[in-house]
Amino acid sequence: MNSGDTAFIIICTAMVMLMTPGVGLFYAGMVRRKSVISMITLAFVAFAVVSIQWVLFGYSLAFGPDIAGFIGGLDHVGLAGVGLDGDGIPDILFMVFQLVFAGLTLAILTSGFAERVKLSSFIVFGLLWTTLVYDPLAHWAWGGGWASQLGALDFAGGTVVHISSGFGALAAALVIGKRLGFGQETMEPANIPLTLLGGALLWFGWFGFNAGSELAADGIAANAFTVTLVAASAGALAWMGASWIKGKPSSLGMISGAIAGLVAITPACGFVDTMSAIVIGAVAGLLCYAALLFRLKKGLDESLDAWAIHGVGGFWGAIATGIFATAAICGIDGLIYGNVNQFVIQLIDAGVAVVYAFVVTYVIAMLVEKTIGLRVEEEEEYVGLDIAQHGESVRM
Amino acid sequence: MNSGDTAFIIICTAMVMLMTPGVGLFYAGMVRRKSVISMITLAFVAFAVVSIQWVLFGYSLAFGPDIAGFIGGLDHVGLAGVGLDGDGIPDILFMVFQLVFAGLTLAILTSGFAERVKLSSFIVFGLLWTTLVYDPLAHWAWGGGWASQLGALDFAGGTVVHISSGFGALAAALVIGKRLGFGQETMEPANIPLTLLGGALLWFGWFGFNAGSELAADGIAANAFTVTLVAASAGALAWMGASWIKGKPSSLGMISGAIAGLVAITPACGFVDTMSAIVIGAVAGLLCYAALLFRLKKGLDESLDAWAIHGVGGFWGAIATGIFATAAICGIDGLIYGNVNQFVIQLIDAGVAVVYAFVVTYVIAMLVEKTIGLRVEEEEEYVGLDIAQHGESVRM
Amino acid sequence: MNSGDTAFIIICTAMVMLMTPGVGLFYAGMVRRKSVISMITLAFVAFAVVSIQWVLFGYSLAFGPDIAGFIGGLDHVGLAGVGLDGDGIPDILFMVFQLVFAGLTLAILTSGFAERVKLSSFIVFGLLWTTLVYDPLAHWAWGGGWASQLGALDFAGGTVVHISSGFGALAAALVIGKRLGFGQETMEPANIPLTLLGGALLWFGWFGFNAGSELAADGIAANAFTVTLVAASAGALAWMGASWIKGKPSSLGMISGAIAGLVAITPACGFVDTMSAIVIGAVAGLLCYAALLFRLKKGLDESLDAWAIHGVGGFWGAIATGIFATAAICGIDGLIYGNVNQFVIQLIDAGVAVVYAFVVTYVIAMLVEKTIGLRVEEEEEYVGLDIAQHGESVRM
Repeated sequence: MNSGDTAFIIICTAMVMLMTPGVGLFYAGMVRRKSVISMITLAFVAFAVVSIQWVLFGYSLAFGPDIAGFIGGLDHVGLAGVGLDGDGIPDILFMVFQLVFAGLTLAILTSGFAERVKLSSFIVFGLLWTTLVYDPLAHWAWGGGWASQLGALDFAGGTVVHISSGFGALAAALVIGKRLGFGQETMEPANIPLTLLGGALLWFGWFGFNAGSELAADGIAANAFTVTLVAASAGALAWMGASWIKGKPSSLGMISGAIAGLVAITPACGFVDTMSAIVIGAVAGLLCYAALLFRLKKGLDESLDAWAIHGVGGFWGAIATGIFATAAICGIDGLIYGNVNQFVIQLIDAGVAVVYAFVVTYVIAMLVEKTIGLRVEEEEEYVGLDIAQHGESVRM
Repeated sequence: MNSGDTAFIIICTAMVMLMTPGVGLFYAGMVRRKSVISMITLAFVAFAVVSIQWVLFGYSLAFGPDIAGFIGGLDHVGLAGVGLDGDGIPDILFMVFQLVFAGLTLAILTSGFAERVKLSSFIVFGLLWTTLVYDPLAHWAWGGGWASQLGALDFAGGTVVHISSGFGALAAALVIGKRLGFGQETMEPANIPLTLLGGALLWFGWFGFNAGSELAADGIAANAFTVTLVAASAGALAWMGASWIKGKPSSLGMISGAIAGLVAITPACGFVDTMSAIVIGAVAGLLCYAALLFRLKKGLDESLDAWAIHGVGGFWGAIATGIFATAAICGIDGLIYGNVNQFVIQLIDAGVAVVYAFVVTYVIAMLVEKTIGLRVEEEEEYVGLDIAQHGESVRM
Repeated sequence: MNSGDTAFIIICTAMVMLMTPGVGLFYAGMVRRKSVISMITLAFVAFAVVSIQWVLFGYSLAFGPDIAGFIGGLDHVGLAGVGLDGDGIPDILFMVFQLVFAGLTLAILTSGFAERVKLSSFIVFGLLWTTLVYDPLAHWAWGGGWASQLGALDFAGGTVVHISSGFGALAAALVIGKRLGFGQETMEPANIPLTLLGGALLWFGWFGFNAGSELAADGIAANAFTVTLVAASAGALAWMGASWIKGKPSSLGMISGAIAGLVAITPACGFVDTMSAIVIGAVAGLLCYAALLFRLKKGLDESLDAWAIHGVGGFWGAIATGIFATAAICGIDGLIYGNVNQFVIQLIDAGVAVVYAFVVTYVIAMLVEKTIGLRVEEEEEYVGLDIAQHGESVRM
């Protein structure tokens, strides 16, 4: 074991953990005042529920011995065989590093349920979703499943975290239906500084997320850090610039562009160089902004744009990995260096993830809807989830 | 010296430092709007005052050569003999890692003084308290005092930090008396998102607090990290679940449960495994929730529940260490593995800490009360400490 | 390469990155409600713009081969020759560690433009300023330029970051002019808890800033951490104490004093011991408070006191390094140990930085003013930059 690597991954894990309240605050600032507390609480609850699921059996499903390329075996149920020593870093540290990713992913997905989900139903949905969507996707990419066998590249979770939560949020939003009054009345963001603060915590934590995915404190981790930073900056400027053409550049556009850049560089960050990161981030800003405009035009109430930013950005990032990967960094070239093969693999991987995440999430959400019901009563939605679900309210 | 361990403890120290404003924000969201700034400021002032005390003589009292098992000698006054080299990590790093614990502990205790303490008196009280309560307790547990000689286990500060501040806050609240109108008028929390943000920063920093207490980046640190995370999740779900039976599950209950779980796992985190951590955290959530209900029933104005969460949670954690410790992790078994002895030692250690912290805090608070007075004028309390003590107000 | 050092600097870089939104929140709480979003956005935009500038050519100007002691050559344009390996830490990690300093410095300078700058003009100004002021100053101190050849000591950026941004902000404020109504109407801070939160993030990130500047996890880094913490505490208490004599001790004074202490210890933190840090921090608190009173008396609208805190504090820190440096820590003695020479060198270094930063910033600001105009229309300033520049508003 290496104390430098262990120190690095312990701290990175804490940083990724902070992203979960980060996403809660990021979302909470954009909903209406009557649902601010609810949005933050959903993030915390997602994290708490998933962390228990993960140590009981989720980790084993994702990282147990491969079964048919699809799922891991039950050898590590209750963390059996997950010890305090390991190769480079302790095994239990790898387990908990993966845990914080799983918790965060469900928190991102709450975008599709914003301001209208029953807390109890969300907990049931979340347990099913993590077990049936997240755990298999993690196994495919990192646990020895079919995607890794195929040679698909996903350094820090483009498919596993972002495509899954983004397209999952879309399916969730379609099943639960639009918020009352959506498209008819204005829904002003409750507290933009809260969103900017949440965005700052996300940006900070993302360094642990991406650089930490190297699982060692070395040159690849340093490169992942650098391209992550630069892609975020490029995304922020691109989205801001594009929206400036149509009107005033909003702070929400700026921070959304930064997140779009961060999402897109996530699968690529171990494989590309800094100049490519500028392109990946800038394109992500433009593409996710276009996706948001498309969503609004279609009248879809995927309320906080997990689909536009994480779904579309994650898809672009997976493809971009196949375009910009360079042997100089990772030993594998992408499309611009003449390797069509890797590009096709990335397309297949991302495409399957999109279909799987969307379809299975849709089925799970329908199942919960048809049994215990996903949505609060109309009256509760009218007064807002803070009071209706939590008996609390914001006096900001 | 080891660069990995040194890197680890430097960063952990910064994370623990962030817990002090974290506790300030956590408390500030729960007081009335007229005292929000005051609560945050008390935390910062506590930290600033204690950090000067610590480098001048506090560190020496806690970690100087043992005198009769009770206190350290004055050999390290002004940091004499505390150098830049050391064994594993630099001596000065160990000193400053301990400093941030001391500063945080006094900040936790401000719960008992909320919305009614004079700033000047708090500074005097804080200097006395850190010198006469915190420093001896730190010496007993970690500086070679009687508790460590007895074999008591306190990995990261169950007695030193949580029992001391929790029971200290109770004594402080009894001496200073209830807030005007307590029990008669509703006292709505000013800003719940602020409390959730503070809770997030506490949760984040707690990883530095608990894992860092290993003083090395190794398997024990990774295990401490993992059990810390899981106990917090279990505590959040347990408190939320218990309060759900009685009514709506509040976000404040959820985050309080997380903190309760974090407190309880603090002394235990170097000695127990993940499955035990689920139990420790869940019981902490239930127990601290019961303690809060008990406090309300008794009409005690220990305003922000440092006693219910840190005091009771810390006591439970100290006992739980004696129940769940496993030789597989730390070489020492607890009660469930048949070792009654360790359980009894833990009971003695926690019991003495409760009595010492409560009694000495009571005496110090009385001393300050009888001389310069602890409490602001009635009129000042009525307008609120923000304007009365700081000439500022929140326009949120 | 060393994994402990690499882990350390990766995390420190993330912490320094967090200081940029930290300074945005710190400033945002002190402006009027109509400019809160604008202040935070300026910080993010500064960071995004500078980070692209830095990887394209800024890093090369600062750290390329020395040209006449003044500037670096273009050898590293587009990060040419900046690889994933290196001596101790990867070269690309050193590059990105320096990047986050550059981004933060421009964010600090926004103090001088608060509530009245056009976003587009700020971007143009920022690009020119980083290229013509920051990059040369970084080269002088750390890239092999004249100051380092002379033997000037600046451990973490007293001249490069603080004198440059502080005196730059003063020049910027003089060129752009006072806010409408400044000195005639009261301008109440919008949200003091936001400022205290921003201050907490700054304090936290500053540990990465100062200790990380050692570029290794060792005893010097641990000492830098310790003196940073202590100077902040001393600064907070000194400013608070001084303002207490004149009236009530405000939380803004307390946190401003902490920042003043942090600024002053920045150049000194690799060279002085803890007892000296108490003096350096306390004097910084008093001096910067006096500078603020002087600014108010003179009716200068350098709105958020980057000059008083970063400019004056940075100057004091540069001098203090020449006074308190001790051979026991760094091999070089300061004035109090009889070495007049180092003191004179520090005076020259700081003096040149003051003049260069002020004059060149003034020229750049005039250039932008005379061409595209720095300032928004009077009507826009009246409604506030949030709505005028971003089409958003705070509903806190």
